[in-house]
Amino acid sequence: MSHDLGNGDLQMSTSTLSLRLGAAWYPEHWHADDIKRDIDLMQELGINSVRVGEFAWSKFEPVQGQFNTQWLEESMDLAHAAGIGVVLCTPTAAAPAWLFAKYPDLGFVRPDGYRYGHGGRQAADYAHPDFRAHCQSITTVIAKALGKHPSVIAWQTDNELCGHQKLNVSEHAVAGWHEWLKQRYVNIDKLNAAWGTQVWSQAYNSFDQVPPPYPLANWAHNHSLHTEYRRYMLDNVLSFQRQQVQIIREHSDAPITHNSEDSVDEWDLTRDLDFASQDLYTRERPLGNILYRHDCFRSLLPGKGFWVMETESAGCLDDDLYPEGKLANFAMASYCSGATGLSYWPWRQNISGSEIVGHSFMVYATGDKATAWDGVAKVSALRKQLEPILSTFEPAPASIAFVRSERNGNAYYMDRIAGLEANFDFRGKLEAHHTTLQAIGTWRDVVFDQADLSDYRVIVSPYLPYTSADFLRQMQAHLQNGGIWIAGPYTGYLTEYHTNPTNALLGEFERIFGFQTRHWVKINTLPVTLADGTQATSSMHAHSFEPSNEDEVLGSYNGAGLAGQAWGLCRKVGKGTLYILGSELDDVAREQLYKTVMAREGINGYIMPEGIQRIPQVSGDGKHAWALVNNLTTDQTIQLPTTGCDLLTGQPVEQTLNMPANSNAFVVFDQPVLG
Amino acid sequence: MSHDLGNGDLQMSTSTLSLRLGAAWYPEHWHADDIKRDIDLMQELGINSVRVGEFAWSKFEPVQGQFNTQWLEESMDLAHAAGIGVVLCTPTAAAPAWLFAKYPDLGFVRPDGYRYGHGGRQAADYAHPDFRAHCQSITTVIAKALGKHPSVIAWQTDNELCGHQKLNVSEHAVAGWHEWLKQRYVNIDKLNAAWGTQVWSQAYNSFDQVPPPYPLANWAHNHSLHTEYRRYMLDNVLSFQRQQVQIIREHSDAPITHNSEDSVDEWDLTRDLDFASQDLYTRERPLGNILYRHDCFRSLLPGKGFWVMETESAGCLDDDLYPEGKLANFAMASYCSGATGLSYWPWRQNISGSEIVGHSFMVYATGDKATAWDGVAKVSALRKQLEPILSTFEPAPASIAFVRSERNGNAYYMDRIAGLEANFDFRGKLEAHHTTLQAIGTWRDVVFDQADLSDYRVIVSPYLPYTSADFLRQMQAHLQNGGIWIAGPYTGYLTEYHTNPTNALLGEFERIFGFQTRHWVKINTLPVTLADGTQATSSMHAHSFEPSNEDEVLGSYNGAGLAGQAWGLCRKVGKGTLYILGSELDDVAREQLYKTVMAREGINGYIMPEGIQRIPQVSGDGKHAWALVNNLTTDQTIQLPTTGCDLLTGQPVEQTLNMPANSNAFVVFDQPVLG
Amino acid sequence: MSHDLGNGDLQMSTSTLSLRLGAAWYPEHWHADDIKRDIDLMQELGINSVRVGEFAWSKFEPVQGQFNTQWLEESMDLAHAAGIGVVLCTPTAAAPAWLFAKYPDLGFVRPDGYRYGHGGRQAADYAHPDFRAHCQSITTVIAKALGKHPSVIAWQTDNELCGHQKLNVSEHAVAGWHEWLKQRYVNIDKLNAAWGTQVWSQAYNSFDQVPPPYPLANWAHNHSLHTEYRRYMLDNVLSFQRQQVQIIREHSDAPITHNSEDSVDEWDLTRDLDFASQDLYTRERPLGNILYRHDCFRSLLPGKGFWVMETESAGCLDDDLYPEGKLANFAMASYCSGATGLSYWPWRQNISGSEIVGHSFMVYATGDKATAWDGVAKVSALRKQLEPILSTFEPAPASIAFVRSERNGNAYYMDRIAGLEANFDFRGKLEAHHTTLQAIGTWRDVVFDQADLSDYRVIVSPYLPYTSADFLRQMQAHLQNGGIWIAGPYTGYLTEYHTNPTNALLGEFERIFGFQTRHWVKINTLPVTLADGTQATSSMHAHSFEPSNEDEVLGSYNGAGLAGQAWGLCRKVGKGTLYILGSELDDVAREQLYKTVMAREGINGYIMPEGIQRIPQVSGDGKHAWALVNNLTTDQTIQLPTTGCDLLTGQPVEQTLNMPANSNAFVVFDQPVLG
Repeated sequence: MSHDLGNGDLQMSTSTLSLRLGAAWYPEHWHADDIKRDIDLMQELGINSVRVGEFAWSKFEPVQGQFNTQWLEESMDLAHAAGIGVVLCTPTAAAPAWLFAKYPDLGFVRPDGYRYGHGGRQAADYAHPDFRAHCQSITTVIAKALGKHPSVIAWQTDNELCGHQKLNVSEHAVAGWHEWLKQRYVNIDKLNAAWGTQVWSQAYNSFDQVPPPYPLANWAHNHSLHTEYRRYMLDNVLSFQRQQVQIIREHSDAPITHNSEDSVDEWDLTRDLDFASQDLYTRERPLGNILYRHDCFRSLLPGKGFWVMETESAGCLDDDLYPEGKLANFAMASYCSGATGLSYWPWRQNISGSEIVGHSFMVYATGDKATAWDGVAKVSALRKQLEPILSTFEPAPASIAFVRSERNGNAYYMDRIAGLEANFDFRGKLEAHHTTLQAIGTWRDVVFDQADLSDYRVIVSPYLPYTSADFLRQMQAHLQNGGIWIAGPYTGYLTEYHTNPTNALLGEFERIFGFQTRHWVKINTLPVTLADGTQATSSMHAHSFEPSNEDEVLGSYNGAGLAGQAWGLCRKVGKGTLYILGSELDDVAREQLYKTVMAREGINGYIMPEGIQRIPQVSGDGKHAWALVNNLTTDQTIQLPTTGCDLLTGQPVEQTLNMPANSNAFVVFDQPVLG
Repeated sequence: MSHDLGNGDLQMSTSTLSLRLGAAWYPEHWHADDIKRDIDLMQELGINSVRVGEFAWSKFEPVQGQFNTQWLEESMDLAHAAGIGVVLCTPTAAAPAWLFAKYPDLGFVRPDGYRYGHGGRQAADYAHPDFRAHCQSITTVIAKALGKHPSVIAWQTDNELCGHQKLNVSEHAVAGWHEWLKQRYVNIDKLNAAWGTQVWSQAYNSFDQVPPPYPLANWAHNHSLHTEYRRYMLDNVLSFQRQQVQIIREHSDAPITHNSEDSVDEWDLTRDLDFASQDLYTRERPLGNILYRHDCFRSLLPGKGFWVMETESAGCLDDDLYPEGKLANFAMASYCSGATGLSYWPWRQNISGSEIVGHSFMVYATGDKATAWDGVAKVSALRKQLEPILSTFEPAPASIAFVRSERNGNAYYMDRIAGLEANFDFRGKLEAHHTTLQAIGTWRDVVFDQADLSDYRVIVSPYLPYTSADFLRQMQAHLQNGGIWIAGPYTGYLTEYHTNPTNALLGEFERIFGFQTRHWVKINTLPVTLADGTQATSSMHAHSFEPSNEDEVLGSYNGAGLAGQAWGLCRKVGKGTLYILGSELDDVAREQLYKTVMAREGINGYIMPEGIQRIPQVSGDGKHAWALVNNLTTDQTIQLPTTGCDLLTGQPVEQTLNMPANSNAFVVFDQPVLG
Repeated sequence: MSHDLGNGDLQMSTSTLSLRLGAAWYPEHWHADDIKRDIDLMQELGINSVRVGEFAWSKFEPVQGQFNTQWLEESMDLAHAAGIGVVLCTPTAAAPAWLFAKYPDLGFVRPDGYRYGHGGRQAADYAHPDFRAHCQSITTVIAKALGKHPSVIAWQTDNELCGHQKLNVSEHAVAGWHEWLKQRYVNIDKLNAAWGTQVWSQAYNSFDQVPPPYPLANWAHNHSLHTEYRRYMLDNVLSFQRQQVQIIREHSDAPITHNSEDSVDEWDLTRDLDFASQDLYTRERPLGNILYRHDCFRSLLPGKGFWVMETESAGCLDDDLYPEGKLANFAMASYCSGATGLSYWPWRQNISGSEIVGHSFMVYATGDKATAWDGVAKVSALRKQLEPILSTFEPAPASIAFVRSERNGNAYYMDRIAGLEANFDFRGKLEAHHTTLQAIGTWRDVVFDQADLSDYRVIVSPYLPYTSADFLRQMQAHLQNGGIWIAGPYTGYLTEYHTNPTNALLGEFERIFGFQTRHWVKINTLPVTLADGTQATSSMHAHSFEPSNEDEVLGSYNGAGLAGQAWGLCRKVGKGTLYILGSELDDVAREQLYKTVMAREGINGYIMPEGIQRIPQVSGDGKHAWALVNNLTTDQTIQLPTTGCDLLTGQPVEQTLNMPANSNAFVVFDQPVLG
């Protein structure tokens, strides 16, 4: 397929990238007539994928050992005939009533001792061996029966793991905990040493004395115990998923994913998967968070694409929140950020259960078209336009890696920072830095601290109290080779085991890179003067530094206790440059600081009006493009680096582009542009 | 008895209506001297009824099987000798310590598994068979011993049923639940179909797999399960009460009531009773709510009168909340609304227990007169004035029935609307419509949707998501016969089983009356233009309609998603008129709408200044009167439809009546007045 | 030692008063090198005491019966060699893991049934006989091994008793409860009568039917039960402590204390101790509270001195809250108020556990000096200056006794006043009166109502609902002898058993002193006109009085219900004067009232600028002095009664003293001054 862009010779790829637009579909809720009408309506709307099987265990296995997959096979046949691909889910997030009746201890147990029962989702104990066995059995049956069905384009394991079952202290979970500790520490003395159990007579004589983090009369457990239990919980869920993945692979060639809703460590979760998926209800999220999530999911399994497996189609039941064009905006931002699938939840209004209101859908329970219909129809049209474009273009490689670390995030912050700031919002604080990077117009990936970071020129890593030896080694090499690392605030002040380092206030980070931290102080707010004279307000807690001769001082504290001490340092390390920040700054000062640093390091930024999303693209033959989304309800004028052509309209564009309210553009430039 | 009204020939009835003024009395707390002093003081104050026996089980039966009723009989003898009638209570709301000691599982169990013990009220499990047996035994003993005592004017069962024990998941309750389900559904498949248990693998293989609504890790159970469990809880309490009613009837001719505090379905509760009673602490209630409650209680068992069984005498411990005259105002509004009894809680300050402060009383624990004394003395004088008047007059029959439905209210709203509006205040929302009817000066009854509505000209029924087949049949007949029905907002969108109808967005309501609903959307606020041009703001959720040729459009939405669609319809049905409202309006617009509809349907309204209560009266011989209460602290001038005479002062009144601050009037008109 | 003050002949005592400056030290957390460095740094800083052993049970007894005290002995040797005294703690607040493993029911149980486990502090059930036995065993081992170590200057039992374990309803606690009741009441009928269990069928047939105060479905238990259970809890903890005290006394001559954090009845707690200690974190306390606490601790065990056993050294992690000089201000106020020891928590930053952030320290975990260092160094210098001064001077005897009563406070207010004022802050309300006494410049002790009050001229006792017979007898004698008693508001309206008295609204208080209370009313606010015309606002609840001929009326209520009734009375009793206050006043009016009363009774007051603390001193030879603390960040000018000399500077001072921001002075006057 070839487009004459009027101004050049861009060759669109003829290879087929299939962009999926789908919805969660529950044929087990409906009669045959309804199912047929659904298929017809999907075709009318341009839906080309459905997600099925999720939560349907009691339909697959109404009585123990009596399996039935035919009902779904028939629906899949209909879908296939209509050209609709199927994402097949394991139904294990909703164990049937007979399973709870059979095992009275099936439910997972809250730290306060309450055991859940049948009726909800993720109520069964993921550490329960019998539950595991039944999950393997039902997965095997479904994989065997339907794994090679021609409609299957992907598999999904369970549903939103760790969304509801976060802390489980059941007998089985605690037994597993003791076993996990034994594997990890071998000797109880090693655990005692690592956790510093000399405090409060917490020393253990054997692994089975180590409690789970149940409530205490006096606030918190040893933080090491908390952190390790969360790690164990994660490992437990990962092994649960792994069992399903192995079974599916035996019986199906379709790629496997999981729909994460941001309540699990997405790095570890996706190691066993073929592509990553996220549930991303945009309703109450700030705009900046959407690109944060997309930047992250694009990078989790590079080159594999990712899906937005659940999002709202809005309109119905939330009409006033969804102005004209919002659905298309989100679809544009998603597909152009690397999503190869976008799926709404659900297709049709539920008749019964707990979600009969409060969610959007394309079709009422009556079978009539709901208010979301028109918005999704526009998305469908957009998808068709984008498919050939995105067969040629893909998101540009970023020079900036923004580091997140769930082993830091979940493990350390939840309870620890309670001591530093009440109701500490780890993710909000972290993402504020990413939002600043968006605001100053840079293009970035969001990567985990376990990832290979060797392709990036700049590493930005705020909020990384535990810096692993591997990560520090990567940073050493990165700096030696001329890279830039903006470290902090809050880097290195905790060990792997959630204790304070004793070799230096910032531990190995400080030792390896040879600078000197002077003080570590909790503050409310404290004035800081940056090197360029900017007056800033720092907050939370503060590290101050003792600069050496080679250190450039980035700013100084003005407050009584730290008056005159260095707020941050910049030092050469090998051919590279290390920036160390001492505390959180206000938004304005942070933006000023990042701008200054990026400018001196020659990193380009294209500042867009707030509300405009810019997603740079490159084609296989070296063309540069920008996907642009105007999320505002007013027209916007955008300065482009050069002239080009908008592939969505086919029209040439000058350097000044006018974008109507809530509209999109895909501008291919006449010449390469930086950044 | 005959009054010369100076201006006519009104004949006051010579039949004796006994108006009761009483107090809750606990002789079991006091010595013989105190008891005699109490009786003297009651006589001085004009108290002519006492409520006794409530919570006195451990006095009646200090050790299992050793009964003692003599202490109470002696107090009743004294009361009787002083002309004071007795309301005799079963003491079952407070099970004694020995009963809890005997049955370790006697306490009821919270959904989170906590079992209550001895010490409070309603702690014993109302589903426990042994508790039931002991309740029957103690009721039998008391009924036999005291049921024919000449002082007894009424019985009260238990106390404020469902006030403290709302959700009980004890072993006995759950066993009863399974039995109840079996009776109701016979076959588990029928239950699965009715509840739509295909969602989240909730299907059951047998009734005993159906859990009670204990907490889930992921928000709510299937809403059908919630709703049905609440129905079961209600049925359980009703059968508990029925056992007592049957025993009392065997041994006593006195009428039986129960003091409801608005935490139970008052329709179902009163089916087994002889008259209705309510506990109505006015302290924090808006004024409009008092007539709402009275309009309802007058209609529950028509012609039987009703009691305010508990209210505060105020003054003591709440002095600044009770301006001069407030007690008399409430008494006036109550007696003239149809109350035949008004009883304060308690007579005398408690010495001990949990209620030694925070309640009002007429006499301190020391035996001295408390601050409430004077206010109650005025009520006592008013009661004497009203007794002959209300032997002649009674509340006028209303042409408007305002429909409430607890099977809708309790069952559907509590959790369901959580999805539509956080902390949804069902009763507040519903009563706002009744307040509007008061504001526009109409006179109305509040009736349940199970009641016979054939005597009313106008039915007003907001917030009726489940419309029973019976109710719809009544409405069909009502409309065929020329009646008016203002339906909605929010009528018919749920089935009996708390699921979404599939035949139409508003289900049977829509199908039977043949109109067409187009959309159902959750909104925050959405502008609406009513047919007369009024600019309104709608809120919560919105139904829009597709008008047919015969439909008159009552208003249109202006918001993006529903722009231009009909907000409400008016259509002729038979000889009658059906108004269908699509969403909640702001107070001003709602008042405008109701005014317009009432005006075109010829329903009269007399608008009073805010704070004035008007309760129209009729006498057996066709005289019309208004009971008027000025609750304001300023004088008010009220326009009367014609001249008359104030029976409280014996003075003639012109058409312009001046009412002093906090005063009452009972104006008999010289000629009949409308409405 | 003799000081030439330049202006006179003041002889400083040559007897040595040892003022201690210390820190909590945990050598069990550290290696030998660290320990030695700690000792060096302590010496550098002037630390002359350490508190050790607290929470170290698992180090003392890592496996049951295998004891090790050598590690601590070595550290104590080092301390001793460095001239540092040791406060030795029993480690019983932190039971080791093996003890929990051995006794599955070791944890204490919350009223809702949750049993705590290992990991925190005060988790073990203090009523558990096996726990008690193990506590005695470990205490014996430590006392034997280390009780005669030359470094030991004091012992501390457990830690912050009742801080975390307040209400315990374990099997053992409940068994103890029944036994305690049996001892106290002998006969169940006596209990039934005292508690008024006729209410709600609460009568008991035997002691073992009396439940602990677990949650009820309907708010609170009988208040008598609540109050008595709290008394029992206290007695249980006291007997626990007594067991340790007895063991320690067998093996050591050092005095014994306990670090109270204001969550226990400090009167009862200290009866078994040799001196009193308090934990006083000043961070969030109003300034007035600090002298309140000091006034109290000075008076608990008169002449024994007291310690501030824990306070923050601040600086680190709270820098902006600690302006220059604040640590020294607190030390000055403490030592001059009678403290003989002041100890920071902790010496060094924890490596591990739950308190690795959020506390201050002098040394980081790395061994570097933290931000608190400089502030503590100043305290250390001040301590050296004060030691000889305070060997000569001591706090002046006060003429005013401000009465507190924990048996009233904890027992009555917590739940009771819930009925009178939501979230009633008993201590805040009570201390507001003490703050007023500070504001009008009087000097006072804070004494418990059980104390010997015979040395005081004025007794001030607000918030004393239960007045014991002993206390009333003391007051009778006090008044007969010419004393002054300002009683109330809220005196005498409850009995010992938390019931309402029936002989008079204010019970025995009213009967003995012969005045007459007219009404008792809950109010929000009610205007009061004091006798001098001051317009006041009263609040909470109100007593009004019927004055007799001898009564002087102190003020009258203006509100509707109590209009014209007396707010307070003044009457002669014997040679003395009794003031009775009817309700709480606003701060301004309360100050006016106290000023007026003190003036007419000839009690002197020296009004200081707000933020200035004045602590009058006397020397053995009759010199008068003031310790003065300027807590403000601005210079202050203070009027002195006469000229003198500042012992901290050695400079003479005129009658007008200029104090720089955050500074101290110790002014010895050239002649005696009043008050």
